[in-house]
Amino acid sequence: MGGRFPPFQRWHVACTRSPHPRRPCTFVEEPAAIPTSDRALPAEVCAWIERLGSLEPEVIPVNAAARGRWLAHDVLAGEPFPPAARAAENGYALRAEDTVGASAYGPLVLRWAAGSTIGRGEAMSVTSGAALPEGADAVLPLEDAESGGGGLHVCAAVAAGAQVIPAALEVDRGDVIAACGALRPQDLARLRLLAVERVSVVRRPRVRLVAAAAPTAAPDAAGLMLDALVQRDGGLPERRLAATPEELQAALQSPGADLILVHGGSGDGPNDHAASALARVGTPVFSGMAIHPGESTAAGRVDGVPVMLLPGTPVACLCAYEMIAGGAVRHLGGGGTGWPYGMRRAILRRKIASRLGRLEFCRVRCDGVTAVPLGIAAAGALRTAVEADGFVLVDVDSEGYAPDTEVSVHVFP
Amino acid sequence: MGGRFPPFQRWHVACTRSPHPRRPCTFVEEPAAIPTSDRALPAEVCAWIERLGSLEPEVIPVNAAARGRWLAHDVLAGEPFPPAARAAENGYALRAEDTVGASAYGPLVLRWAAGSTIGRGEAMSVTSGAALPEGADAVLPLEDAESGGGGLHVCAAVAAGAQVIPAALEVDRGDVIAACGALRPQDLARLRLLAVERVSVVRRPRVRLVAAAAPTAAPDAAGLMLDALVQRDGGLPERRLAATPEELQAALQSPGADLILVHGGSGDGPNDHAASALARVGTPVFSGMAIHPGESTAAGRVDGVPVMLLPGTPVACLCAYEMIAGGAVRHLGGGGTGWPYGMRRAILRRKIASRLGRLEFCRVRCDGVTAVPLGIAAAGALRTAVEADGFVLVDVDSEGYAPDTEVSVHVFP
Repeated sequence: MGGRFPPFQRWHVACTRSPHPRRPCTFVEEPAAIPTSDRALPAEVCAWIERLGSLEPEVIPVNAAARGRWLAHDVLAGEPFPPAARAAENGYALRAEDTVGASAYGPLVLRWAAGSTIGRGEAMSVTSGAALPEGADAVLPLEDAESGGGGLHVCAAVAAGAQVIPAALEVDRGDVIAACGALRPQDLARLRLLAVERVSVVRRPRVRLVAAAAPTAAPDAAGLMLDALVQRDGGLPERRLAATPEELQAALQSPGADLILVHGGSGDGPNDHAASALARVGTPVFSGMAIHPGESTAAGRVDGVPVMLLPGTPVACLCAYEMIAGGAVRHLGGGGTGWPYGMRRAILRRKIASRLGRLEFCRVRCDGVTAVPLGIAAAGALRTAVEADGFVLVDVDSEGYAPDTEVSVHVFP
Repeated sequence: MGGRFPPFQRWHVACTRSPHPRRPCTFVEEPAAIPTSDRALPAEVCAWIERLGSLEPEVIPVNAAARGRWLAHDVLAGEPFPPAARAAENGYALRAEDTVGASAYGPLVLRWAAGSTIGRGEAMSVTSGAALPEGADAVLPLEDAESGGGGLHVCAAVAAGAQVIPAALEVDRGDVIAACGALRPQDLARLRLLAVERVSVVRRPRVRLVAAAAPTAAPDAAGLMLDALVQRDGGLPERRLAATPEELQAALQSPGADLILVHGGSGDGPNDHAASALARVGTPVFSGMAIHPGESTAAGRVDGVPVMLLPGTPVACLCAYEMIAGGAVRHLGGGGTGWPYGMRRAILRRKIASRLGRLEFCRVRCDGVTAVPLGIAAAGALRTAVEADGFVLVDVDSEGYAPDTEVSVHVFP
């Protein structure tokens, strides 16, 4: 922490906070709160999260439960598929050259092939997915033919290769079957089609959620919200309540978590014990972050396990999760630190103001192509997050956006 | 079906298919396949799906498992919250008028309040979320104050209402706490904050997935994919294999499903039994749809339960699910027939060609601001869906898009 918190700022620190303001400030043994200029930049925090790396892989079967899991490595094909050409739809296998000049007004007539191969002037009915008979190089669609007396009436010319799935179309030897990343339904289908039975995916992070507060409504609301957010981001949440500093220390030290998110008690009020507990049993790394809402967000390690301290106010907790902690959950699970949201461009209906030096998480409601910033009057209310369709970020080097500016909106999933 | 399948087309129908093409076509008892012009338009199918309505609501507890469930009704507030004004952050409760003229270079000094109310020239330390003491109308942030000897040194002026959560900010009596729609983490937090313990959500549709084919790799791949897609869309999948027409009929008739999706056997090949099974035990409504891939997609009802017949080829099955069946799953579950994807605008790198009269599902790979259409050579391959980041739809009245056209891409989740 040395370079980031030079000694002269300890005075400022001690002076701006006092647990019992009616007594004169002692200037001494206060745990350090962090002045604005010392809050960690989101980019620094993001770099730290990226250095955590992702968890080790585990092998799971290819089934529907694998949807959304993060493939740890590209899966490569050992053999081409299909091994030989196939019909792409129901129709008639034939030689394309035999259809030249055919039309609805002047159909050509082909003979039904007598054997299993297609000779000149011959055709054979094939079903979608069946092997293309030897000698054929195209499939005439059903709708371009009439199978009247005497053979097949060809009503349209087809090109060589039409309605044919060539050998190795799906994959050739060494091709990527499924690329490193989240497994989608179509990826699962392709793995199954190519007889891949098991895959190596990044283990899901076990995320301990610790309510560092008396059991009142707000921390419980924040805990429930974090539970749902962690699940959304692929983590396995485990919720705990730590009503006392001792319980909080125990929750930080007990094994079995890949990431610990403490909510509540992150500030510098008299009942805020999260930062001091982290300092006692672990190593604080960031004590305050240049984000808003959520300036009190802190991070460090206990016995090697990353720990983040989030605000207890539900809306600030949401913003801090979305800006910081969610990236850690996703990154440990293999998914990187980016936002899992869709984006859209929109025109701001009203200005967004932000202080220089902090990343602002501005909730907006989208209305057609315009975005209305919420929460100027109600910044501390969860309603600003509930009424929002998404958010606009104002970077640390910006004071915001004027009305009618075109901005990028991250849309809540 | 009357109006949509006029009698003269029965001839055309019978002529374009023949289970044993080496025998002359019988022109008689063939189950009707549908010529291009008679395929149902996606808008007609969508209107039919919308008439299915959504399932009845059920009451569930507000917990993390409720994430993504579809709230059946708006939840309204019975009481205002918070009932009285609160501090929005840690700081000092005071009267805003007492801070006029304060600055870092000329701080004003306020006395610590002796009682529980704030008089003129007085201040009191408050923590975020605590009730605002009577008499105060603003909270001075910690960073704008120094609590030195003799009282609070105010280094900045604050406006009335600054850092204050007014009474009823979160909700007033009768306000919407959570609106009809999918429950997000922040909605759950707000419900918990406002002590709403149970909510009424639309029941999840039970979706029976029937593989109407011999147990080979392709139907199994399509079944696995549909399983994952139905789960993605909030349904409860149940998979069955129907290797014979009799098993298929039994799967269509056995109770316990809100929607049945048959995959495979939807076409008019000799081994395609889905359409005839539906006609035998239920009422076909659409026999073929104007979509590509997936023209053979059909729909109807058996004992009042909606049934859809999807192609067995995995890529066509995916496209038909995304264009048609997914909307039915989501609509039954309360979520409407729209696509659950984010959208982005992109410039086409190559042209997309489509036949007039059908909705084309063109898979594209996005590369920065450009979109590359996939699958011109490999339309029948699942690779076009696996390599795609999303899809561009070409509507029935369009023949496609020229290169460099700006198009909307639906991005796969």
